[in-house]
Amino acid sequence: MTGNLRVVLKRQPEGVPVPEDFALEVAEAGDQGVLCRTRCISLDPYIRGRLSGRHLTGVISPGEAMSSELILEVAESAHGFTAGAVVRAHGPWQHHVRLDAQSLQPVPNDIAPASLFLGVLGMPGLTAYAGIKTILRPKSDETLVVSAAAGPVGATVAQLGRIAGSRVVGIAGSVDKCRWLVDVAELDEVINYRRENVREALDRTCPKGIDMYFDNVGGDVLAAVMERLAHGARVALCGLMSQYNSDSPLSGPNPGLIIRARACVQGLVVYDHEALRNEMQTALVEEIQAGRLAFREDVSRGLESAPDAFCRLMRGENFGKALVDLES
Amino acid sequence: MTGNLRVVLKRQPEGVPVPEDFALEVAEAGDQGVLCRTRCISLDPYIRGRLSGRHLTGVISPGEAMSSELILEVAESAHGFTAGAVVRAHGPWQHHVRLDAQSLQPVPNDIAPASLFLGVLGMPGLTAYAGIKTILRPKSDETLVVSAAAGPVGATVAQLGRIAGSRVVGIAGSVDKCRWLVDVAELDEVINYRRENVREALDRTCPKGIDMYFDNVGGDVLAAVMERLAHGARVALCGLMSQYNSDSPLSGPNPGLIIRARACVQGLVVYDHEALRNEMQTALVEEIQAGRLAFREDVSRGLESAPDAFCRLMRGENFGKALVDLES
Repeated sequence: MTGNLRVVLKRQPEGVPVPEDFALEVAEAGDQGVLCRTRCISLDPYIRGRLSGRHLTGVISPGEAMSSELILEVAESAHGFTAGAVVRAHGPWQHHVRLDAQSLQPVPNDIAPASLFLGVLGMPGLTAYAGIKTILRPKSDETLVVSAAAGPVGATVAQLGRIAGSRVVGIAGSVDKCRWLVDVAELDEVINYRRENVREALDRTCPKGIDMYFDNVGGDVLAAVMERLAHGARVALCGLMSQYNSDSPLSGPNPGLIIRARACVQGLVVYDHEALRNEMQTALVEEIQAGRLAFREDVSRGLESAPDAFCRLMRGENFGKALVDLES
Repeated sequence: MTGNLRVVLKRQPEGVPVPEDFALEVAEAGDQGVLCRTRCISLDPYIRGRLSGRHLTGVISPGEAMSSELILEVAESAHGFTAGAVVRAHGPWQHHVRLDAQSLQPVPNDIAPASLFLGVLGMPGLTAYAGIKTILRPKSDETLVVSAAAGPVGATVAQLGRIAGSRVVGIAGSVDKCRWLVDVAELDEVINYRRENVREALDRTCPKGIDMYFDNVGGDVLAAVMERLAHGARVALCGLMSQYNSDSPLSGPNPGLIIRARACVQGLVVYDHEALRNEMQTALVEEIQAGRLAFREDVSRGLESAPDAFCRLMRGENFGKALVDLES
């Protein structure tokens, strides 16, 4: 198939999505708005919730285009945008598309690559920054635990905690991820939840209890952490990777654990924190340029690879921010 | 049996305690400290946790005296206390006892009855006040839901919410309690959880969602409330009445509910808030004297009645602050 293609949802996935849940079809760019060429697609776990109608950003139904955050290049000057300008917007997984000018966010062109504005300098970075600033507020000599620690949100949270002087324990699901977390992201401890008993590993790495937890997964890892909270702990609930592929919502930890620790458990949704975006970009660019904040991208090539890459993400097999590059 | 008697735990209760779990026996007042005569015993749900070794204030083992907060009268002048002085202290359920002078808290003698310092002006009042001040921070036009609303903590929370201008919905377990909550405590709505479907009743009474929840019970009522949290909700987790009689800790609500509402869920333990006690007493005495804060006591007579009264409390059959009066 050639021409202007897009990825559509063919059927609602059952459990972990498979590539056959998606299809490629010829698309129209549309009549209204600024004609853009898609350069990069962001793949994110929350998208799975939309396929089941369980995400606050709305549902994607069978027959509809898959959509997420994109990096695009303006193809024709219009509505104040110059051809060649690089922008970020929510839009369909499609080569060429016209988008409402008001939905286009210019991307600073002095920081390369632009794909960072989908990752460490984009929604995942803002999520991490908001969690650190508004919920966890790390102090030195405190212990921070982060799940899905090699992902773009988790890795940023973990390193911001380290920069603030906290001891940081990352939980991830492969030997490679754990090695990267120690060698590159410079975490104090890592736990490979596929190889170790998480409760025993938390007891070993957090002998004084857990002062802060940034949760990307829910489920049993959340329960294990909650059993070990220190007095006055702060918990940011951000993701539910353990149940995105499930249709029946699970129960959570016993509330007695929150009482015992006098913990403060808060829900974190990045859309509430747009006001922090500029501050986040300035702060994280500075950390990146100083060599204190590492990031990783997991890039697939070509629109056709998007369904498979999304399925890999939902199996936890990505290593770094999952992106689809449409330019190479 | 006559003389100086005390109540001891005879055996660890299974499930809901029964009077046969306790025994009366002759006691010694002891050799050290200030000789006191017990006037009033506080019965509180947290005591049940101590009988199973599951409360942070420690365990009461079979053969040991039952203990809790007491109002006592100093029987012999000693260590700076004058005979006849009225004090509050933690101590055994026993007629006469010597207690360490440092553990005795003088009770203001210009506010009668002294039993209020076990209830609305004591630990339950401080619990309620701390929850309102440090976690819920009620605003007018917000909706506050309180479980076990006719108990001394719940009734105080509910009325402080009403005084702050919030709409208040109380959940209680009898027609009499619900009537008192409307007629005397002047709540906006009540739900009788034994007669109504709690989810339907919450939908009816909280059409805009629940901005604040003060939880004394855990279990399914907590789950039902969490499903209905408004954006930015605050939840104070304080009690677990639904599981005090159970030996297996239960699971809690799905963490996705906390994320969706961006809620802040905090554990509340009264022992952390001693610094608020004087402020609480001043504030609540003022509300009581102004006729804005109602309270109720559920008084049993005589030390012998304590086991039965405690068992009634743990069956949820008390109506007001459960006390044992040793003077009448």
